Amino acid sequence: MSLLVVGSVAFDAIETPHGKVDRTLGGAASYFALAASHFTPVRVVAIVGEDFTDEHRAVFHGRKIDLDGLEHAPGKTFFWAGRYSQNMNERTTLATELNVFADFKPTLPDSYLNSSTIFLGNIDPTLQRSVLKQIDRKPKVVGLDTMNYWIERTPAELRETLKHTQILMINDDETRQLTGEHNLLRAAKHVFKMGPRTLVIKRGEHGALMVHNNFLFSVPAFPLEEVHDPTGAGDSFAGGFMGYLASAGAVNEQTLRRAMVYGSVMGSFTVERFGVERLAKVKRAEIHARARRFLKLTTFKL
Amino acid sequence: MSLLVVGSVAFDAIETPHGKVDRTLGGAASYFALAASHFTPVRVVAIVGEDFTDEHRAVFHGRKIDLDGLEHAPGKTFFWAGRYSQNMNERTTLATELNVFADFKPTLPDSYLNSSTIFLGNIDPTLQRSVLKQIDRKPKVVGLDTMNYWIERTPAELRETLKHTQILMINDDETRQLTGEHNLLRAAKHVFKMGPRTLVIKRGEHGALMVHNNFLFSVPAFPLEEVHDPTGAGDSFAGGFMGYLASAGAVNEQTLRRAMVYGSVMGSFTVERFGVERLAKVKRAEIHARARRFLKLTTFKL
Repeated sequence: MSLLVVGSVAFDAIETPHGKVDRTLGGAASYFALAASHFTPVRVVAIVGEDFTDEHRAVFHGRKIDLDGLEHAPGKTFFWAGRYSQNMNERTTLATELNVFADFKPTLPDSYLNSSTIFLGNIDPTLQRSVLKQIDRKPKVVGLDTMNYWIERTPAELRETLKHTQILMINDDETRQLTGEHNLLRAAKHVFKMGPRTLVIKRGEHGALMVHNNFLFSVPAFPLEEVHDPTGAGDSFAGGFMGYLASAGAVNEQTLRRAMVYGSVMGSFTVERFGVERLAKVKRAEIHARARRFLKLTTFKL
Repeated sequence: MSLLVVGSVAFDAIETPHGKVDRTLGGAASYFALAASHFTPVRVVAIVGEDFTDEHRAVFHGRKIDLDGLEHAPGKTFFWAGRYSQNMNERTTLATELNVFADFKPTLPDSYLNSSTIFLGNIDPTLQRSVLKQIDRKPKVVGLDTMNYWIERTPAELRETLKHTQILMINDDETRQLTGEHNLLRAAKHVFKMGPRTLVIKRGEHGALMVHNNFLFSVPAFPLEEVHDPTGAGDSFAGGFMGYLASAGAVNEQTLRRAMVYGSVMGSFTVERFGVERLAKVKRAEIHARARRFLKLTTFKL
């Protein structure tokens, strides 16, 4: 199945206890596309400025990543700067310069209109819905990410977009904020009434929990000795998840469980180095080897 | 194998968003013994005061719980009062009255001296070691729990006791404090140099992680719609863990993984009601059914 992602492509300045980078390729759509492209071809809908050069495009080259939907606009690319605490549990945003992203109106090239798997990255819910409207036929699967900003400021628009969403992928706090319910299982029931049939709760270093009408599935984060930069872990998770699901063709309990694992695998690679460095270099054999290590990490017999 | 636990038996006053109890049976040894007794006979070494009556003893009756090592002393039983925050993520201690526990000098009845599996609950490391000294032969397995108080105040004594310990069972913060290392895998290597070969990191609502020289194993907390009182979850986990391990006879990768699951099963029952209420009533069939639900919660195929 063809996978389309809409979201941000950005330059990030990141500081962690393990070092700093001044201006590295980032943004949810970048991490998503790099992670997903190991499983299936990905079509990217995003916007960049004049400072985004061939050198930056090159990171996506030689992969199954279609950049026909990457709009180049006058001005500068979205820029984000952040610093992680000593334990990397907390992150302080030092700068957010929307630049060309402020006027982003996602426009799909004709070649994208038949996409059957869609991931609506964390942007204005109205723009997320505008992407769905452009798609020819009803997509087979729509996944969605959002954040506190949209939950607070545009609740009605978000609810409208959620009606067209099958898989909601957010963190614990966002789940609680969206539903007004602290208990995650009860919160999931509220989410199911909004449209999605599957809630994936991303819990960072604590892994991820999938709540589906018919089953629960939990996957831990992979314990690593080297965690250099948590940036993009959640977006890499989403990319691995949706990429695997699109490649599998069918959405069922078996493939959803496996999608959780491949999402976690991709997230675990991302955090080992700064920005997309590790993700851009990871090999197919490494992905499968780590998936098998997830199996060893969680397997028991009664 | 015969399982011995040393620790506190207490009265607890607990307040959570789901209600309050003024004076309920608590203490680490109580939760541990009730949980472990579903798997193997348990011998309890603890101290109580004159306010601990036959009515309280009755909670342990009809189970494989030996109270010959429960000392009755003049004075009052250890009393603890605490209040949980709205989300139950934080707990405020309102009162700690050590009472007879202040002068606790664990003395093992003769019938306990051949115990082969020992759990040293969270008490002064010197007292923990005094229990080991009374045991006839070198025990087959020694598990140990401790806390920030002992890590800060009696580090040398704790280190000495750890030399005789195979399984250390503490939380993330305690692991970091004990080793001075934030990364849990690297912290485990420090722990291994202190004596234990297995580190079990209890993470509350995020489950538990086992780090062993040769393998890693992660188990989630069971997602529950009803969490009424987190008190005693960690001690119930330890009881299920050590109880299963003692019943299995052998300590190997297979039994250690299963011990993690049965520990989590027992912890998940405890939090569903106040104090030991649920734990004291749970049936063997329910334990096995929940273990199977853990299997469904974590199983995937590649």
